[in-house]
Amino acid sequence: MKSLITLAAFMLFGANPVLAAVDAPPEEMSEETKECVKCHKKNNPGITQQWGASKHYRAKVGCYECHQADEGDVDAYIHDDEKVKKNISIIVSPKDCENCHAKEVKQNSESHHVKAGRIMASLDNLLAEVVEGNSAFVTEGFPDGNSAAAVVGCWQCHGSQVKVLKDGQLDPATWPNTGIGRINPDGSEGACTACHARHQFSVAQAREPRTCGKCHMGPDHPQKEIYEESKHGIQYQANRDKMNIDNPKWVPGEDYFTGPTCSTCHMGATKKQDVDHNVGLRISWNNRPPISVRPEVTDKKMGSPSAAIGWEERRDNMKDVCSACHSEEYIESFYMQYDALVTLYNDKFGKPGKALMAAAKPLLKPAKFSNKLDWTWFELWHHEGRRARMGASMMGPDYTHWHGTYDLAKHFYAKMIPELESLVAKGAASDDAKKKEASKALKAKIDEVLNSENHMWYLDKLTDKQKEIRKQAVEAAKAKYSK
Amino acid sequence: MKSLITLAAFMLFGANPVLAAVDAPPEEMSEETKECVKCHKKNNPGITQQWGASKHYRAKVGCYECHQADEGDVDAYIHDDEKVKKNISIIVSPKDCENCHAKEVKQNSESHHVKAGRIMASLDNLLAEVVEGNSAFVTEGFPDGNSAAAVVGCWQCHGSQVKVLKDGQLDPATWPNTGIGRINPDGSEGACTACHARHQFSVAQAREPRTCGKCHMGPDHPQKEIYEESKHGIQYQANRDKMNIDNPKWVPGEDYFTGPTCSTCHMGATKKQDVDHNVGLRISWNNRPPISVRPEVTDKKMGSPSAAIGWEERRDNMKDVCSACHSEEYIESFYMQYDALVTLYNDKFGKPGKALMAAAKPLLKPAKFSNKLDWTWFELWHHEGRRARMGASMMGPDYTHWHGTYDLAKHFYAKMIPELESLVAKGAASDDAKKKEASKALKAKIDEVLNSENHMWYLDKLTDKQKEIRKQAVEAAKAKYSK
Amino acid sequence: MKSLITLAAFMLFGANPVLAAVDAPPEEMSEETKECVKCHKKNNPGITQQWGASKHYRAKVGCYECHQADEGDVDAYIHDDEKVKKNISIIVSPKDCENCHAKEVKQNSESHHVKAGRIMASLDNLLAEVVEGNSAFVTEGFPDGNSAAAVVGCWQCHGSQVKVLKDGQLDPATWPNTGIGRINPDGSEGACTACHARHQFSVAQAREPRTCGKCHMGPDHPQKEIYEESKHGIQYQANRDKMNIDNPKWVPGEDYFTGPTCSTCHMGATKKQDVDHNVGLRISWNNRPPISVRPEVTDKKMGSPSAAIGWEERRDNMKDVCSACHSEEYIESFYMQYDALVTLYNDKFGKPGKALMAAAKPLLKPAKFSNKLDWTWFELWHHEGRRARMGASMMGPDYTHWHGTYDLAKHFYAKMIPELESLVAKGAASDDAKKKEASKALKAKIDEVLNSENHMWYLDKLTDKQKEIRKQAVEAAKAKYSK
Repeated sequence: MKSLITLAAFMLFGANPVLAAVDAPPEEMSEETKECVKCHKKNNPGITQQWGASKHYRAKVGCYECHQADEGDVDAYIHDDEKVKKNISIIVSPKDCENCHAKEVKQNSESHHVKAGRIMASLDNLLAEVVEGNSAFVTEGFPDGNSAAAVVGCWQCHGSQVKVLKDGQLDPATWPNTGIGRINPDGSEGACTACHARHQFSVAQAREPRTCGKCHMGPDHPQKEIYEESKHGIQYQANRDKMNIDNPKWVPGEDYFTGPTCSTCHMGATKKQDVDHNVGLRISWNNRPPISVRPEVTDKKMGSPSAAIGWEERRDNMKDVCSACHSEEYIESFYMQYDALVTLYNDKFGKPGKALMAAAKPLLKPAKFSNKLDWTWFELWHHEGRRARMGASMMGPDYTHWHGTYDLAKHFYAKMIPELESLVAKGAASDDAKKKEASKALKAKIDEVLNSENHMWYLDKLTDKQKEIRKQAVEAAKAKYSK
Repeated sequence: MKSLITLAAFMLFGANPVLAAVDAPPEEMSEETKECVKCHKKNNPGITQQWGASKHYRAKVGCYECHQADEGDVDAYIHDDEKVKKNISIIVSPKDCENCHAKEVKQNSESHHVKAGRIMASLDNLLAEVVEGNSAFVTEGFPDGNSAAAVVGCWQCHGSQVKVLKDGQLDPATWPNTGIGRINPDGSEGACTACHARHQFSVAQAREPRTCGKCHMGPDHPQKEIYEESKHGIQYQANRDKMNIDNPKWVPGEDYFTGPTCSTCHMGATKKQDVDHNVGLRISWNNRPPISVRPEVTDKKMGSPSAAIGWEERRDNMKDVCSACHSEEYIESFYMQYDALVTLYNDKFGKPGKALMAAAKPLLKPAKFSNKLDWTWFELWHHEGRRARMGASMMGPDYTHWHGTYDLAKHFYAKMIPELESLVAKGAASDDAKKKEASKALKAKIDEVLNSENHMWYLDKLTDKQKEIRKQAVEAAKAKYSK
Repeated sequence: MKSLITLAAFMLFGANPVLAAVDAPPEEMSEETKECVKCHKKNNPGITQQWGASKHYRAKVGCYECHQADEGDVDAYIHDDEKVKKNISIIVSPKDCENCHAKEVKQNSESHHVKAGRIMASLDNLLAEVVEGNSAFVTEGFPDGNSAAAVVGCWQCHGSQVKVLKDGQLDPATWPNTGIGRINPDGSEGACTACHARHQFSVAQAREPRTCGKCHMGPDHPQKEIYEESKHGIQYQANRDKMNIDNPKWVPGEDYFTGPTCSTCHMGATKKQDVDHNVGLRISWNNRPPISVRPEVTDKKMGSPSAAIGWEERRDNMKDVCSACHSEEYIESFYMQYDALVTLYNDKFGKPGKALMAAAKPLLKPAKFSNKLDWTWFELWHHEGRRARMGASMMGPDYTHWHGTYDLAKHFYAKMIPELESLVAKGAASDDAKKKEASKALKAKIDEVLNSENHMWYLDKLTDKQKEIRKQAVEAAKAKYSK
């Protein structure tokens, strides 16, 4: 499926059918596309009309130009023996798109987005495949079955590894799927349609916050919800019709001047920067892991070329976006607030939590997630811990506090600590010397954590400094009230 | 209140005041309506203006045409002795609407929607009337009182049984109420205004997703939220102004070609199907109960005529809608994914959960919801179990997974199993022989469930097949990462 | 910074630079503003353009007119030695706005909104500063540090106490901040930009529900979510483009006649009432505390002049808004339903909950929030208890029931009661005579509560009246089903 547009170019310009980018769009709609449209206009008028409203239509790029396939392509098949008699494939992969959109595909291929399909051997996959699921979803391509929880849940955002059946059809466990890290039959990673929805591929639609919100939402990373709460989301909603959102050039401060969308800040052009489909190049913290790290650290683990780009440069890229509407002082102070919240999370919850879990391990049942504590700790960093950090990153105070640090504290003190203490008691009562020892070690760790400055309030201890601060705060407030 | 428009017809055309549908709308605005408008224009200008923007206005259907009543109607009253001197009633029921909209009312009367008021003796009612509520909301019509939790909660979506007071006024416990299964003074079921909001009755408004979202939202059936996450919701939001949503004919693929709304799929016209107000005729699973069943099964229980229509036919109806924008292969594969998720839920959580609850019953305190386990199991099927299944039905992966199968697993393993085990222990320690026996039986049932293929991971056991699958998955992923 | 517009007036009209309201807007854009625009147009084009779209621009009110400062102002600084050479300040406070908008500022200054910054010594502050946070966010102005959880969470809605550094710059712990109760360098309370976002200050944007939703959302007061569920929110969303939302006069029933926004009901003009920025003058219950009280009660505590205005008058103010679209009977009955729900909450959960907590106190660990029960009770009144009451106030049935009374019952019976019982057991087993006694007293209190009419169902007891009601309800429903 590699050279589809090239083939079109070949037909039009007599070029050799080698793999190459197209120099110019076709001058006429191809006969093949006209043939496709004849039936699909009747049978699936929606997609024909969507395409009719697209830039592709205007550029004479039709069904066949994108869906054509080489005979040798793994997913090639003759769609209709009577009429078309040409090989096509169902999936249009980034390798196809790059014939015309090489720069965008390259940028995207260096982002975390296209790596999202790799989750399949990670922790989340254990959850969906074993804990939540089973192997009962048997299909032609998977006689041993798949977990429907993975197929219908995880894979729809992360991407499936698409399996081609004998006749070029796609295995129903792996298709329909527009997960952003889809592993395609041609080996490429990614799905441009994850954001640029078929068959209009509208740039305006891709710039809408809800597009990102299909996956960036929910208990574990509610970016959509945080955005909607923020001043940015408020301004967007109030002024959407003045945002010029379908303008090819879409520079904040020039083409629109109200709130930004996700796309504005993470990918969009500014006066100084070009659009970039590598969404990580303006992010200065990776708040995904139990302890926040700089993005170049995880880029390196992932083997991404952007590992060479430090967080300071990425932050400068973002500051450049902010400056369209905000002063330098404002931006600097915002980042100090954001960094402070990340540090608070890391130091008060992330690091001690991780250490406590390590100490608890010998006392836990072996199967991960068969202990209540496994769930508690998982949600602490993966759910509320992220909500706090991400809420701070995008100025959504309710997510930072009520869905974030409040839930962190509640679950740390009212769930995790009591559950750890019950492990200590159980271990101490055990006949197993190793368990007894582990129990002692865990108890010592708990004591250490609870007696540290961050947590001693729990034992009704406050440092002198803390006492003084509280006293002053209460007095200051009383003075205000009595006015 | 049965013959209101008929009366109008009588006045205009000299017909006998018998109960009959109207053949044609009035030619002039009635004198009675003009009288109504005189005051209400001043006192409640909003509703007058809403009506002025409605099709009713253009068709000379005014206040009196809908609100008029026969003297003998249970809720008839003389609104104003001086001016109007005619009997009117506050509620315009489906029996009134059917004078002009007979087909729509008939379709609706065969749907689950109009039966929603029957919840009043069900489980949910026990919750709202006893567990959450009391009988302290005493009104003229209910000297024994009602539960405010039912009145302000349940009934606002499900519908109240409207009680008429002596003077034609409505009891405040039962009105205001626009619940979709309202039981009206004339004995009819349903409230057209649940969706077609007073007094514009705009078709465009009824087609908006938020209209359905008034009730189809929240922890127990978040259809609105699922839709908003889905590609359909993304397309709707990005293209709403191009959706021609106020077009009388509103056929996807002809009149609009972006994402559908709830109405498009569940009720709307297609090239082959007419609009149908029986919202269940395109649904192939009823995901409401603890174990999903086919819709004809529950239709039969409810005595609905659509019990004769099998799920296969209903699915074909829906596939016809899908085909406006999707290929046959896409649709078939989607349904395989959806069915697989429903089956996973039924087999892994629904059926074993139900069996465990049956085994636990002799060990529980008699009052339902006085045991923590009652709440756990109720939410398992009624909340997260539905979220998983409904998420899959509408392609909202976050709801399928994080709000669905993830929560199912968490609550099954980290709440339900431990709570059952503590019942076992308590029963074993009891002096009551029956309890001892029940404890043994429950323990056996737990062991059976946990040693089944779906759950043995919890005991750190994997089938050989499972081990092989996990091993391959981990290796495949590692290979990918090392690229 | 008090006399900034006055200064402008001085420059234009030769008036003395005394503190005084401006009689008329300037006739020309000031030279200072022109100087500001020169650079900011290049460096921060967004804000310049926002201002260019504002009424301020048309009235020749520019950067300098609002940001100018007296040399003696605590936050005055020379922004640019070369060009501007004038004192300006970053924050434009209500004292500045009142030069032109005296009436609005005065109204707002009497509302709860401007008092929101006083939370700093309250319970929530203990949470954010100690339980969730630490003092590690050290800045120039706060060598002892602040809690990032407070800075990035609470303060962003409630407002910071802005600290000015030596050079007129603002301490980054306290700025950026647009919290509605911000305590400004000039001593004034409030931030007009909390709702009227910089730099367009658009009235249309301030009237949007999302504007209020920045803070009025989430688990503890989901007004935004309740509104979105309600018929009002449905009508707003379906008809937003017909709402004339940027009309200076914006009277429901005259200028728009579909659903209201938050602003319509709580602040907006009606045919009888003028716009009022004191948002509490139409509210007849304060549902914030553990037990709902009338708003004049909390106004008195706060020293607000509106303490003189009783809830009946406030309710009449609101009824006047309702009457734009609803009949008197409808409004009266709505209020009976709402009052009934508040009373149900107060009597069944609020009052007994408070009494149980008082009885439990001697048995709790001394540090607040170090007991699981502290969290349970806090959420009972502060989260689900408010959701139920606020859901009823705005006709959002899902929030009233599933997020409200359902959660109340679940947490009262399945969490609070068992946790209290375990305190009783622990106290009874204690060697401390005082604890033993407290345990007895708590047990007696639990028994008293559970044997009261509201709760006896939990002990499988029903009053004869309750039994009869349940029986009739079940029979009535069965009769309906068998039709």
